[in-house]
Amino acid sequence: MPDTASYPVTERNKVRRLHERARYDHDSVHAILDAALLCHIAYVIDGAPYCTPTVFWREGTHLYWHGSSASRMLRVQKPGVPVCLTVTHLDSLVLARCGFNHSVDYRSAMCFGQAHIIDDPAEKARALDAMIDRLYPDRNATLRPSTAQELKATMVVGMEIEQASGKVRAKGVGDEEADYALPIYAARIPVTQVLGASEPCPRMPTGVSAPPGLAGFTPGRRLDEVMAENQARLYEASPG
Amino acid sequence: MPDTASYPVTERNKVRRLHERARYDHDSVHAILDAALLCHIAYVIDGAPYCTPTVFWREGTHLYWHGSSASRMLRVQKPGVPVCLTVTHLDSLVLARCGFNHSVDYRSAMCFGQAHIIDDPAEKARALDAMIDRLYPDRNATLRPSTAQELKATMVVGMEIEQASGKVRAKGVGDEEADYALPIYAARIPVTQVLGASEPCPRMPTGVSAPPGLAGFTPGRRLDEVMAENQARLYEASPG
Repeated sequence: MPDTASYPVTERNKVRRLHERARYDHDSVHAILDAALLCHIAYVIDGAPYCTPTVFWREGTHLYWHGSSASRMLRVQKPGVPVCLTVTHLDSLVLARCGFNHSVDYRSAMCFGQAHIIDDPAEKARALDAMIDRLYPDRNATLRPSTAQELKATMVVGMEIEQASGKVRAKGVGDEEADYALPIYAARIPVTQVLGASEPCPRMPTGVSAPPGLAGFTPGRRLDEVMAENQARLYEASPG
Repeated sequence: MPDTASYPVTERNKVRRLHERARYDHDSVHAILDAALLCHIAYVIDGAPYCTPTVFWREGTHLYWHGSSASRMLRVQKPGVPVCLTVTHLDSLVLARCGFNHSVDYRSAMCFGQAHIIDDPAEKARALDAMIDRLYPDRNATLRPSTAQELKATMVVGMEIEQASGKVRAKGVGDEEADYALPIYAARIPVTQVLGASEPCPRMPTGVSAPPGLAGFTPGRRLDEVMAENQARLYEASPG
């Protein structure tokens, strides 16, 4: 079912520069998020900014990420501090006829909210199972179950998206009208993040092969497409 | 000439989690930075964190980025506020035998410093020329020169790296010893960011072809390799 809602536009998430590139509707923002495996999270410790890359996933308008219980980022986020979670896909290099019009095509999303630790053991275990199955369809059921020690060593953080903005540039070369006649090479060079051939662990017992859930991970496929497909597979049948 | 120096290790940049993955020496940190086109920059406005993606480049231990003079991020950075600039390369997906050992191989670098605006017109023009030539060898000389208006509309920000840390995971599957005997599929799936075939602008006059400086941008090449190669080409012959 299409989600016709939008995130509220406030001073915090309003796109000021090139606002024709801005997207605030759930569908546009979520599409950018769901195509990604990694995000960068900004947070503040003693007034100073930190920017950390991490694996994340989305359930409805809620984002989750995880890490070690020992990590500084996650300890600081414990009391529910504000964070900004940003995702960026680089889609092309844009070589124009002057320096000023050089650019890149991209899709990015900035999400603002307050991080909270998922403390309840059952909810935490469920979230971690969802993370695995969001990345790799049906994989969790094939794994050795998590131990209590492993769950204890892992911290899961959640964040309801309070505001968000997406920004998309997809126009390739855009030059000043007078410059098109100049004898200068201009081009768009596509950039994609692609999968290579799987390298099975050499220590598997004989006879173990890749389960059907990994069928989408074929060499040469775009990671963003695989991620979006797996997200839809896990969540589109159910609400949220 | 090899750079044998290291960034100082302080409370701010000390890697706490899995410190065997940490790198503080210039060569390791710079290699991670130079292989990237985009970074994510964290900064603070009124106590709240923001995380913005942008193109950046390095000269010695100095980082530069640019944007519109109208951008909020750059306006806030004007007085020399602290920022954290982070670069991340995703190198593989790691599917292990339990959820806990699922991981990714990656290279990331976090750089801390104070942003300052490059106000001097000559220095600003030089930095913007360097940005173009760092990305695309010898390209600047082939372009229509920047106008005063274009330079005025562009803000260039610089930052001396005060502290930095690199973090590298490159081990693929690492499971608990007892788990290797289990009949569970485990694998490393490589991920690379690659160039596609250039799409020349359809509005070029006939006879304009790609200049020799773009010879490295061949379809299928890894963007990180092209970026590192172009950085070396511009800077390795000269000091810094």
